[in-house]
Amino acid sequence: MNIEIINTGSELLLGLVLNTHQQWLGRQLSDLGCEVSRQVCVPDASRQIQAALRQSLARADLVIATGGLGPTGDDLTRDCAARLLRRPLVLHPATLSRIERYFAARKRPMPASARVQALVPEGAAVLPNPNGTAPGLAMKAAGKWLILLPGPPRELRPMFAQSVVPLLRREFPLSIKFVHRTLKITGMGESVVEEKIAGPLRPLVRDGLKIAYCARVGEVDVRLAARGPSAAALVARGAEVVRGLLGPSIFGSGDDSLESVVIRLLTGRRQTLAVAESCTGGFLAHRLTNVPGASAVFLGGMVTYGNQAKEDLLGVRAATLRRHGAVSRTVAREMAEGARRLLRADYALAVTGVAGPGGGTAKKPVGTAFIALAGKKGTTVLLQYSPTDRETFKFAISQRALDLLRQALPA
Amino acid sequence: MNIEIINTGSELLLGLVLNTHQQWLGRQLSDLGCEVSRQVCVPDASRQIQAALRQSLARADLVIATGGLGPTGDDLTRDCAARLLRRPLVLHPATLSRIERYFAARKRPMPASARVQALVPEGAAVLPNPNGTAPGLAMKAAGKWLILLPGPPRELRPMFAQSVVPLLRREFPLSIKFVHRTLKITGMGESVVEEKIAGPLRPLVRDGLKIAYCARVGEVDVRLAARGPSAAALVARGAEVVRGLLGPSIFGSGDDSLESVVIRLLTGRRQTLAVAESCTGGFLAHRLTNVPGASAVFLGGMVTYGNQAKEDLLGVRAATLRRHGAVSRTVAREMAEGARRLLRADYALAVTGVAGPGGGTAKKPVGTAFIALAGKKGTTVLLQYSPTDRETFKFAISQRALDLLRQALPA
Repeated sequence: MNIEIINTGSELLLGLVLNTHQQWLGRQLSDLGCEVSRQVCVPDASRQIQAALRQSLARADLVIATGGLGPTGDDLTRDCAARLLRRPLVLHPATLSRIERYFAARKRPMPASARVQALVPEGAAVLPNPNGTAPGLAMKAAGKWLILLPGPPRELRPMFAQSVVPLLRREFPLSIKFVHRTLKITGMGESVVEEKIAGPLRPLVRDGLKIAYCARVGEVDVRLAARGPSAAALVARGAEVVRGLLGPSIFGSGDDSLESVVIRLLTGRRQTLAVAESCTGGFLAHRLTNVPGASAVFLGGMVTYGNQAKEDLLGVRAATLRRHGAVSRTVAREMAEGARRLLRADYALAVTGVAGPGGGTAKKPVGTAFIALAGKKGTTVLLQYSPTDRETFKFAISQRALDLLRQALPA
Repeated sequence: MNIEIINTGSELLLGLVLNTHQQWLGRQLSDLGCEVSRQVCVPDASRQIQAALRQSLARADLVIATGGLGPTGDDLTRDCAARLLRRPLVLHPATLSRIERYFAARKRPMPASARVQALVPEGAAVLPNPNGTAPGLAMKAAGKWLILLPGPPRELRPMFAQSVVPLLRREFPLSIKFVHRTLKITGMGESVVEEKIAGPLRPLVRDGLKIAYCARVGEVDVRLAARGPSAAALVARGAEVVRGLLGPSIFGSGDDSLESVVIRLLTGRRQTLAVAESCTGGFLAHRLTNVPGASAVFLGGMVTYGNQAKEDLLGVRAATLRRHGAVSRTVAREMAEGARRLLRADYALAVTGVAGPGGGTAKKPVGTAFIALAGKKGTTVLLQYSPTDRETFKFAISQRALDLLRQALPA
């Protein structure tokens, strides 16, 4: 089965927006056992959209096009597909009333232009959009499937899960079994992970196991996949080998994030968490509160960017700040202990460091951070050095902090 | 001038890695006045790489291909280009010694496979790589330019700036002037923006002004561009029309973010800011602290997820919480005033709401939030309703909060 993705949008080619659809759709499709053979991005121009659609439909069994279904003048994909497949656009009354209700619920007048989103190529299946106005469209032509999805990720993603996956399962039932599993590792780099596991996995690879490594900031994914009747057994044996070799460095699998694992562990133990952040500036709290249900265990925290705030909000002693400086082992400890005490939490994480670009010194260069974990049994402080840009630094430091807590919470 | 980008890499199509090259290169090229007309991503397979190179060279004047220049078995781009253009691969001695020095400097033995990176298609220009081993390659064939760049962004980006930009300026001297400008708008949707400005801009569009809209969460970008001798005047007149129509909704231009604008305005006025966050859970502080230099004006804040934390950390009254509930106008006000007082800040922003998926009621459904701004002159509270997923909700609410502060800070 041959799949191609077409992303439409001048803003993508102009570099105004990052194209996240390619990765997201690629990942979803490969997890279903379908590999994308080509992805193309074209501007909002009828000639180029039509050419891309025609070329992809000539090569592929399934073409997924994103973007260009909205109400504005540069939304051309619906028109281009209708013209290419010679299907007139017809009004879909159920969609029109859904769009009208969408605006009414938000107490906003419906612009006249919004109506165009209720026009669909004759015979196309309408994929509902609970998160926006433009529906998705699916149509079959000359034995090929063409699926059009809206551009905004928060509309496209649920629509893919709710409407496209069932369509694919129905129209392209997998002739062979496909099994995959992703193990998520933190605390070591990609080359170290590969060095440790590639050799021991070699016999399974000879039997058909496929391994893919993916390095992210503070995280390495190992994806094990196999096809055929022994696929499940192969992947299970591979996962067992990796677990045996990397044990405590594996924090989860599939779509687990370190924050979701930590919230899950705390919830299971009915324990609570507070945070005190300097250099991560709220990012640690943000990651924790991205997890639905976090409010059961995450009490809150302080972002103490200035020294005065560290004293006023966390009770860090002025003498400690004077003697050791804000970026120090002792201040990290006092921050964690202050947050734990003030929020009456079982655990508190604290971070203080130099995010850069300014503020570095010879002794404490940009990238230096101290991370403290306070709990009933005392406080642990560790030093982490991540010289990089500001946002990557925040991620790396929060990752290390969450992992410090995870390792203190045996499942 | 017609430009195409080819990204090679099976990991991109499997969705294991996000393709950031498309956006980065698109942005660099469009800022030089060169628009990318198509981007293609193909897997690490000779047949598909060659087909993509052949098709793009047939259409474009310049083709930039990324990835596949390294030493491993799936690095195929150099070979494919050499074969397609019928140029033998020859050893480039200066590159070989540079690669040898690269390993020596890191006290690592040079693997035999690394040598292949010193082979270049006969006659190709070698683009130095100070950040890695594989050089870039540039070659002209049948009047077209083909440029091959290494996959890792930290190698590709400096190489583009140092070697590709001078080559483009030399080989494609812009015969006509190119000017562009992006205005950033918040507080209204894309279709409303277009409805307001498209008509009045029509005469300028007839004269050659190009308009592109880009909708993000809580933000619409309007990019005005023009070519030719009157380009600067056309763009300036376009920007004037947009400013006249959307005035206070325009928060910045170019790469401005709402957080960077707010930090800049506060810095100019030597005023300070504190935040108190419930439903945004640290995200507002995170956005503010992403701005280099934020520490001069952003003092810090509290993430008060639980009611107890709202009382303990911000002095919200228990009676207020009982009578009005945590998600209420009065609690938002007390949170903002508490944070302003405790952090001794000129301004404080507070947010309390229902992020979902749980916690909604008939009166306060998921997506409801109250945003308060406390300042010397008193406190303003507004209600915002954004029923969406958890992360989009956090963004939309923080965007509205930052804009509330921006509008209170005339430049």
